[in-house]
Amino acid sequence: MPGIKNRNIYQQRVSYSVVDRMGFLYHVAYLEYFELARSDWVRKIYKPYKEIEDEGYALVVIEANLKYHKPAYYDDVLEIAASVSNWGNSRLSFNYEVYRENENKPLCTGVTKHCFINKDGKPAPMPEGLKTILEKLES
Amino acid sequence: MPGIKNRNIYQQRVSYSVVDRMGFLYHVAYLEYFELARSDWVRKIYKPYKEIEDEGYALVVIEANLKYHKPAYYDDVLEIAASVSNWGNSRLSFNYEVYRENENKPLCTGVTKHCFINKDGKPAPMPEGLKTILEKLES
Amino acid sequence: MPGIKNRNIYQQRVSYSVVDRMGFLYHVAYLEYFELARSDWVRKIYKPYKEIEDEGYALVVIEANLKYHKPAYYDDVLEIAASVSNWGNSRLSFNYEVYRENENKPLCTGVTKHCFINKDGKPAPMPEGLKTILEKLES
Amino acid sequence: MPGIKNRNIYQQRVSYSVVDRMGFLYHVAYLEYFELARSDWVRKIYKPYKEIEDEGYALVVIEANLKYHKPAYYDDVLEIAASVSNWGNSRLSFNYEVYRENENKPLCTGVTKHCFINKDGKPAPMPEGLKTILEKLES
Repeated sequence: MPGIKNRNIYQQRVSYSVVDRMGFLYHVAYLEYFELARSDWVRKIYKPYKEIEDEGYALVVIEANLKYHKPAYYDDVLEIAASVSNWGNSRLSFNYEVYRENENKPLCTGVTKHCFINKDGKPAPMPEGLKTILEKLES
Repeated sequence: MPGIKNRNIYQQRVSYSVVDRMGFLYHVAYLEYFELARSDWVRKIYKPYKEIEDEGYALVVIEANLKYHKPAYYDDVLEIAASVSNWGNSRLSFNYEVYRENENKPLCTGVTKHCFINKDGKPAPMPEGLKTILEKLES
Repeated sequence: MPGIKNRNIYQQRVSYSVVDRMGFLYHVAYLEYFELARSDWVRKIYKPYKEIEDEGYALVVIEANLKYHKPAYYDDVLEIAASVSNWGNSRLSFNYEVYRENENKPLCTGVTKHCFINKDGKPAPMPEGLKTILEKLES
Repeated sequence: MPGIKNRNIYQQRVSYSVVDRMGFLYHVAYLEYFELARSDWVRKIYKPYKEIEDEGYALVVIEANLKYHKPAYYDDVLEIAASVSNWGNSRLSFNYEVYRENENKPLCTGVTKHCFINKDGKPAPMPEGLKTILEKLES
């Protein structure tokens, strides 16, 4: 069951720069936190995303959805859970849940959908190594 | 017909700070552009959002959806169209389309859903003045 | 007298994303505003900075100094004055003053120093066209 | 000798969002990294900066200077050294050096100067507890 086995938690402290005048974590910052969690997932499960780009691939974002449930505050330590929700030949989707440390209800949940492209900007099959790992995670 | 009458275009040039190493406008920046376009809509149709907050209301984001169709590049002049898609007692949703100047196909489209809250952080009916304007736009 | 003749004013409204929990414009944002004003100066006096990069040059920042005098607030319209303070074969420095619209005392002042580099990352003489313009401004 | 004893290292990986189209860490991001390192220093030596603000103080930035020596790249692990360079009744200055992990020459160095203010925005003596710690570090 994907989304369980492949779940990875990334910790991030809310810095001064991303808090707005209401004292809340600025809503846009969550989408960047999703990326931090996703990159960490890719690094741990496969290899640094930088190497994927150096090999001529890019994993571009084609869709993003976010639901905001409760605010986060300055200096909160957040845990961003990322997991692959589904994937195909050149596609990959992630689910996210953002928690305040030691809490059970997520502050924010979301999805990002991605497509692999090659150097010419055309859709391309995902790297074989990653495909093998994803197949293994599912079995 | 909402989404037509109330449509407002906000212009924004892609600055150096929001372009990534692929040379594309960073995907997270679109969500901030949505806010710029929404604030401009609110200012033109009703009053500066700052005044709304000063009167004890806040229009918090409860959901955001983005679809990425084509990349934008450094120094592109973008036109972000924002329009109210639907609204209720304390709720308000916006549609967005981001175009490169003089192009017909959007680079990015999206939706944000909002809820009015009062000083205690509780859902609150929207300001009467705004409600009157929205009713008028629909008629 | 450089810094007078070549002075350019760039307008920027303080958006929600750059205001911190004290309600002030976040101090880091001024350095980005300097860049917006500098790019606008370059565009008006010479050509879009994008074209300079496309021709194989880059104007990298080697030093930046900022002095903060008074806070700016959400929704303030700021005027960022940029002017070349001095320049050499491959070097260029700018002065900045950031004002709230219709005020006489700057909120922030600063300097950035730059060096032209070529595609190999080595210092390079500035484009001839820009040099000619700078000489003319001084005469 | 301040600046030695009180030196604290903060680690930060260069994320996708702060890399520009040259592939370099965007120059503005260093000033935000300085803040991350300074906050970490304050937390370890004294208490979370959040608590300082909650007690009615703020440590506002009155000056910032940065020198850029060499570029940092995407996914680099950086070490930001922060140390108090000097302080007075209501003033505090920090020095910074940013290194790429396992390198000896800094990529960026800088200084920030700060002033304590109270809730009315007036300069205020620094919290007694912090003063005691700074005196001890010097002895």
